[in-house]
Amino acid sequence: MKNYTTLILAGLVIVLAAVLIGVMVYIQNQPAEVRAIQPLVEIAEMEPDSARWGINYPNQYHSLLKTETNNIDTTYAGSSQFSWLERDPRQVILFGGYPFSKDYNDDRGHANALNDVRETKRLNLNDEDPKHTPATCYSCKSSDNPGLWAELGMEAYDAMSFNEMTPNINNSIGCSNCHEAGTMRLIATNPALIEALERQGKDWETYSRQEMRSLVCANCHVEYYFKGDGKYLTFPWDNGTKVEEIISYYEEVGFKDWAYPETESPMLKAQHPEYEFFTAGSTHYEAGVSCADCHMPYVRDGATKYSSHDVHSPLLNPEEACGQCHTNTDYVVERVAIIQQQVAETKITAEDAIIDAMTAIKAAVAAGNADPALLDEAKKLHREAQFMWDFISAENSTGFHNPEYALEVLSKSIDTARRAQMLAAQSVGDMSLLETGTYYENK
Amino acid sequence: MKNYTTLILAGLVIVLAAVLIGVMVYIQNQPAEVRAIQPLVEIAEMEPDSARWGINYPNQYHSLLKTETNNIDTTYAGSSQFSWLERDPRQVILFGGYPFSKDYNDDRGHANALNDVRETKRLNLNDEDPKHTPATCYSCKSSDNPGLWAELGMEAYDAMSFNEMTPNINNSIGCSNCHEAGTMRLIATNPALIEALERQGKDWETYSRQEMRSLVCANCHVEYYFKGDGKYLTFPWDNGTKVEEIISYYEEVGFKDWAYPETESPMLKAQHPEYEFFTAGSTHYEAGVSCADCHMPYVRDGATKYSSHDVHSPLLNPEEACGQCHTNTDYVVERVAIIQQQVAETKITAEDAIIDAMTAIKAAVAAGNADPALLDEAKKLHREAQFMWDFISAENSTGFHNPEYALEVLSKSIDTARRAQMLAAQSVGDMSLLETGTYYENK
Repeated sequence: MKNYTTLILAGLVIVLAAVLIGVMVYIQNQPAEVRAIQPLVEIAEMEPDSARWGINYPNQYHSLLKTETNNIDTTYAGSSQFSWLERDPRQVILFGGYPFSKDYNDDRGHANALNDVRETKRLNLNDEDPKHTPATCYSCKSSDNPGLWAELGMEAYDAMSFNEMTPNINNSIGCSNCHEAGTMRLIATNPALIEALERQGKDWETYSRQEMRSLVCANCHVEYYFKGDGKYLTFPWDNGTKVEEIISYYEEVGFKDWAYPETESPMLKAQHPEYEFFTAGSTHYEAGVSCADCHMPYVRDGATKYSSHDVHSPLLNPEEACGQCHTNTDYVVERVAIIQQQVAETKITAEDAIIDAMTAIKAAVAAGNADPALLDEAKKLHREAQFMWDFISAENSTGFHNPEYALEVLSKSIDTARRAQMLAAQSVGDMSLLETGTYYENK
Repeated sequence: MKNYTTLILAGLVIVLAAVLIGVMVYIQNQPAEVRAIQPLVEIAEMEPDSARWGINYPNQYHSLLKTETNNIDTTYAGSSQFSWLERDPRQVILFGGYPFSKDYNDDRGHANALNDVRETKRLNLNDEDPKHTPATCYSCKSSDNPGLWAELGMEAYDAMSFNEMTPNINNSIGCSNCHEAGTMRLIATNPALIEALERQGKDWETYSRQEMRSLVCANCHVEYYFKGDGKYLTFPWDNGTKVEEIISYYEEVGFKDWAYPETESPMLKAQHPEYEFFTAGSTHYEAGVSCADCHMPYVRDGATKYSSHDVHSPLLNPEEACGQCHTNTDYVVERVAIIQQQVAETKITAEDAIIDAMTAIKAAVAAGNADPALLDEAKKLHREAQFMWDFISAENSTGFHNPEYALEVLSKSIDTARRAQMLAAQSVGDMSLLETGTYYENK
């Protein structure tokens, strides 16, 4: 009897030990934010200092710090600050009369966002008017924003200039832009995002974790504009997030970013509509892939698994980024190269067509005797063609986030630009306005 | 000692029986053409009668027979004989003056190829000239061709009219078009394919089996033309197989399929360039997928595995066709729908631009006072724009075989068509030629 008891007890000990080891291995394999049941320090709500969060989440924080120095380029973009205006001088003409024609550098990593927005020459192009650059320009550049939005309200950004807001802003993009302290869950923090979703009848609180792994990027990586005199940060999503729907929204509210010089065409500048572009039926989005899956892949530090916060192009770490799903990453990288080349070449075709259109419109305006209805229609088509092109050009993937949509939109841009050019010629009855390849004259 | 011997022998028997069962299972799982070491009947070289091959390969033969009745449509095409001219009346204008503007039905399955080529109204559009339709038109429609090419030479097709060749042709597409009797290996049978590869310095005999599972489709599913007075079947691949390379080839040899009425524009008709289109860097081609992987997937009949010869759109059997690689075929089918819609819509944009161009060119010719250099350039651009569009339109996948390339080529087609229209207007100095949407007037 005693022997049986010993045997049963010994058996139980072995079974329990095995279960315990299994549970430990399971926990160790969870992402750190799930694992950290007992944080080392308490983090205040909307804490702007990522270093404080880093005490509890050292791997995530340490990888975030790498975005300060990860300035490596890919074939078409990457994380250095190269000048788009030097690389593609057509853009000097396309953004003529707008600050982007003076200074337009590629974006660097998240840790540099604050420095880079303070140093862009676009800020000081209108020194005599301190309201020229509103504080709203800080909205996507700092982890101080969630706290300031809660404390002052987003309206405060409208009332203050960029320079007036500067003393309040001390941290580049960080933890508080996407995480809720304590729970560490992913959250929408930008009021403009929350409000745009609400106007579409959507509530981000109902989104799955996987959906949030894309939606938090939409706190910033979107098309937006500064609404009205108050420069209220607004996403133009009321009609939908496809490019035609955004154009129709801007048309309805009568918005323009600037007037093209010599023609007064009401132009639009696309910001960085990655979220809208990726979610417009792309292969990866339809397959349930999130932004973070590729840009913040799970990596290991010894036995610990965590989501890398060193956000950059997956072309720089395809084994980690693409290799989570694709077995042959050489194939994947080659495919990306083919697609980006196709989009880059089609972009140039669109740029040439738009420059021909704006050259014709300029000449029609200068002639002074244009049919106003035809000329206005030409300007409207120029505005649409350029925004379609810019939607693809400003988006940070040279089309890869949604290749077919990129090429579909560019093909519409080309047709629209050529129709604008023809209308401009018709408006003054001048055949010389049908010249093509005018970029080389404009240079 | 005796006991040991018995034990060893019994052991050996068990091991050998196990190995034998393993080998049997392995053989049973091989494709039938590998498994059939002892054919039931001997098949003559280039045997045109597929029923004879079917004695040895009943599953393959039986599935081939299904192509006679598999007339099911997909959203954009499929295997019924619907009229392209009714479905997309713009094509009546685009092929104006050419037999395709009178009769242009979608292709049915392989078993119907011979009947369908004999019944198309395009054959009898020029009855007074029996040479109008050369025997070369049989080249892709019958399993009698390999034997006839060997016996008479491909030149015989040049010397004979379609009607003169008719008594020699008794079988629709079949086994001998792609297989070598005896070995059953996949072979290039069309002399035009073999010669086009040779001119590119390529030898199909060096191709891997997987490469041959696409190349045999290129016996027919390609762009081709009838060269010179002899109507010698020729693939225009000397400069490469991309659309610009094919256009440059036709330019160099000064070829046109027909002259557009009222303008004498030297037009080109694309045939069915699936092979060139698919191999131009498509996702699936780059991943090592062959035509047969999707269109002739391995299926099971009881314990037998064989490649289905019931060739048709994979959208009709996505579980079998796509499911060999993709776990979620619902996702795949949805992606195909999105891509085909994008390509179909962009195709219409291109068609509208081309019709505007040809309307303008017609008017410029009619005016009688056009600048000849400008007008000729307009005609040349019309020819190029239309061939680029047709390369995508005539190809049988509504862009899916290579989505990015489809949209890239269509965007070039649109730009080229608009430039053609502008040149036509310039050639006569007539602003009214810049009108857009002229399709609705042409109807």
